[in-house]
Amino acid sequence: MDKGNKPSLEVSLSPALLHLYDLSQKIVVVIDVLRATSTICTALHHGAQKVIPVDSVEKCIEIGRQLGAITAGERDGQIAPGLEHGNSPLEYPASFIQGKTLVLTTTNGTRLLHMAKDAEEIVIGSFLNLSIVCDYLVARNRPVVLACAGWKDRINLEDSVLAGAILHRIKSHFDVQCDAALIAEQLYLATHNNLMEHIQQASHYKRLSQHGFQRDIAYCLKIDQATVLPLYRDGAIERA
Amino acid sequence: MDKGNKPSLEVSLSPALLHLYDLSQKIVVVIDVLRATSTICTALHHGAQKVIPVDSVEKCIEIGRQLGAITAGERDGQIAPGLEHGNSPLEYPASFIQGKTLVLTTTNGTRLLHMAKDAEEIVIGSFLNLSIVCDYLVARNRPVVLACAGWKDRINLEDSVLAGAILHRIKSHFDVQCDAALIAEQLYLATHNNLMEHIQQASHYKRLSQHGFQRDIAYCLKIDQATVLPLYRDGAIERA
Repeated sequence: MDKGNKPSLEVSLSPALLHLYDLSQKIVVVIDVLRATSTICTALHHGAQKVIPVDSVEKCIEIGRQLGAITAGERDGQIAPGLEHGNSPLEYPASFIQGKTLVLTTTNGTRLLHMAKDAEEIVIGSFLNLSIVCDYLVARNRPVVLACAGWKDRINLEDSVLAGAILHRIKSHFDVQCDAALIAEQLYLATHNNLMEHIQQASHYKRLSQHGFQRDIAYCLKIDQATVLPLYRDGAIERA
Repeated sequence: MDKGNKPSLEVSLSPALLHLYDLSQKIVVVIDVLRATSTICTALHHGAQKVIPVDSVEKCIEIGRQLGAITAGERDGQIAPGLEHGNSPLEYPASFIQGKTLVLTTTNGTRLLHMAKDAEEIVIGSFLNLSIVCDYLVARNRPVVLACAGWKDRINLEDSVLAGAILHRIKSHFDVQCDAALIAEQLYLATHNNLMEHIQQASHYKRLSQHGFQRDIAYCLKIDQATVLPLYRDGAIERA
């Protein structure tokens, strides 16, 4: 295919850089591997009807009450007072979540979803649904921005690696004029054979492992365990 | 050495992320490989008395006139109207620059210098003075932030690779709790054996090569060709 006819593919490694990218007319893939987007993919894969992301504990309680939904969210690694469940994907097996609505508040992921509101479409990405996201982006043939949530605006390793993994798989279908994309791809190529080892050096691992979440991390790095394509639309995330 | 006693070493991959780092009491290394910090190192190595970085063409003309100094700067890859010279390090051989003052305006590098004004010290880094910068940081034994200039707040490849090169050389002397540092190091390890090839895929290369600056780029990637340690202090950059 002529390069000039390919849609663009860009990577934003932090929410603090997202304003540099024009999101209108583009598909934005929101990435928050540990753990918001991994948990959303898992809940929907296990049959949740929808996930409603909110930015505060108060909204979570209020909407949960209105809808009779499950409320979940953590602050500083603990279930937030007034909510029922945490942010771990392992808390949402089919036996628990099937057919239900989950109202979820997270620190970084929810904020990024709201920041991406000008996009043509917003897709939820994780290692757990890597292949289905890649297949979808290629099939849609539209310009794409991969938007990493990071941690309080700092770039993080796991989100950057996933951006690189997506880029590496689909770049032949896109026009890549973005150094952050080249960097993410090199990072992915350098780390994917022993990703757990690299993540153990990362800031998030140190933060989460203090709360005993090593099992979460091992799960969130698995590829294609939750084969759903979640789309964010009108305030809720549902299967495409 | 006990890890707890080592000073911190962090990497900011874009000026838009620099506010996340507390710069007070720290040494900031400003990195703008193509081409501000490479040109500054070269001019000082070739005997320039000082380099005065300014953020506008108007200031450049005014200060140049006051000091009887050489004025230099580009906009969109061309010598800016009213100035005498460009941003290429190859324009500043000893036969031309020795003993003189250079007033330089650049798009990204100057702005970053001003953003880092709260730092304890500001060091100018490039591939051209890599070893002397590394030796200095280890000897000073103070917390360090490596601050990449990028391009209009976007992360770029060449500055990130240099940050990774510095980190890789000196990390055993520092406490590294920063994912951007891990990413920069992986990028350096993945690209340093064929850096020119990788840079040819980068956005800056495409921009500069349109203006015929391939020679500049090849020069700016050379290690230890300008063995000076430039420090920014009170508005001017001089050899330490």
